[in-house]
Amino acid sequence: MAVRVLVASRNAKKLKELRRILDDAGVAGIELVSLNEVPPYEEAPETGATFEENAIAKARDGAVATGLPCVADDSGIEVDALNGMPGVLSARWAGGHGDDAANNTLLLAQLGDVPDERRGGRFVSTCALVLPDGTTTVVRGEWPGTIAREPHGDGGFGYDPLFLPEGGTGSAAELTPAEKDAVSHRGRALTQLIPALAALA
Amino acid sequence: MAVRVLVASRNAKKLKELRRILDDAGVAGIELVSLNEVPPYEEAPETGATFEENAIAKARDGAVATGLPCVADDSGIEVDALNGMPGVLSARWAGGHGDDAANNTLLLAQLGDVPDERRGGRFVSTCALVLPDGTTTVVRGEWPGTIAREPHGDGGFGYDPLFLPEGGTGSAAELTPAEKDAVSHRGRALTQLIPALAALA
Repeated sequence: MAVRVLVASRNAKKLKELRRILDDAGVAGIELVSLNEVPPYEEAPETGATFEENAIAKARDGAVATGLPCVADDSGIEVDALNGMPGVLSARWAGGHGDDAANNTLLLAQLGDVPDERRGGRFVSTCALVLPDGTTTVVRGEWPGTIAREPHGDGGFGYDPLFLPEGGTGSAAELTPAEKDAVSHRGRALTQLIPALAALA
Repeated sequence: MAVRVLVASRNAKKLKELRRILDDAGVAGIELVSLNEVPPYEEAPETGATFEENAIAKARDGAVATGLPCVADDSGIEVDALNGMPGVLSARWAGGHGDDAANNTLLLAQLGDVPDERRGGRFVSTCALVLPDGTTTVVRGEWPGTIAREPHGDGGFGYDPLFLPEGGTGSAAELTPAEKDAVSHRGRALTQLIPALAALA
């Protein structure tokens, strides 16, 4: 019988991505369930100072509430000229939550006078796996690049149109989902979580 | 005859503040002149990564253009939960330049979920004195405090209504100008510049 693992998300794309990564790694015997498939429980607000804190808190909430091993992630963009911010505030950089257009506009304006050589940054994804007994595994994936001077492409979400991955020819919003998964911060983080997940199966 | 020193500013308050600090320190023989009193010259944009870089660049521009010793400053607010930003971007944090209301609104929104124990920060002022021969003195004054959850008072400018100085009972916008000068980051920086200025007289 498959081991059930809760993914602390309602985003079907996140479940599919982890499913694909598990399959590619040849890990069988794990059934992923989303927040839509378990009884509702109270989730602590994401007020940690680091991605790690937020991911661990979210995974711990899920494991405690359901008794299942729980995977959770927290992700964002770190911009060198902003000392690593927006960071944990990426989704609400312009004040509201999840207003991609406002966040991108603000970031561009803040970096308006910042010269090319100081426009480096990276997407960061931190993933945590917490078991019902409290055992915690936390991993970090990074995707380095630079911040463009205007948006490029209309794929992806968040800061993708402004992010020019290192070694690429366009923005993250100009990659197909498969291309992005293969190199992105989330893919890199989840891949590191495979050994801990495989040990459950 | 008094030594003329250029203060790279058009703000009469800044000249008066330095005048008062020189007088209090008993330094005579220095005549302060503002940018309004010298022929116009081109000023480099403030695109440095640090307050120090910006202050030195501004003072160097003035000394080179006029042949006078030149004092310049760069100031801003560093917020711990934003990894020290807004920093050199303090005046244009919300995108436009010098929109105090927008800057304050944005900072409050970004810190909306940040708990009290992580709302620390400081006002920072860096002052540079550059002589016509290139000799450079640079000093830094800091004023520690915390970021309020709403504006207090209507004095001061910039982030003053949100800044609660350490050991105080209200915001920086609730101090009289004299009270503020006596403890502020700019006062602390300028005071450190006195020995180098006194050496010119």
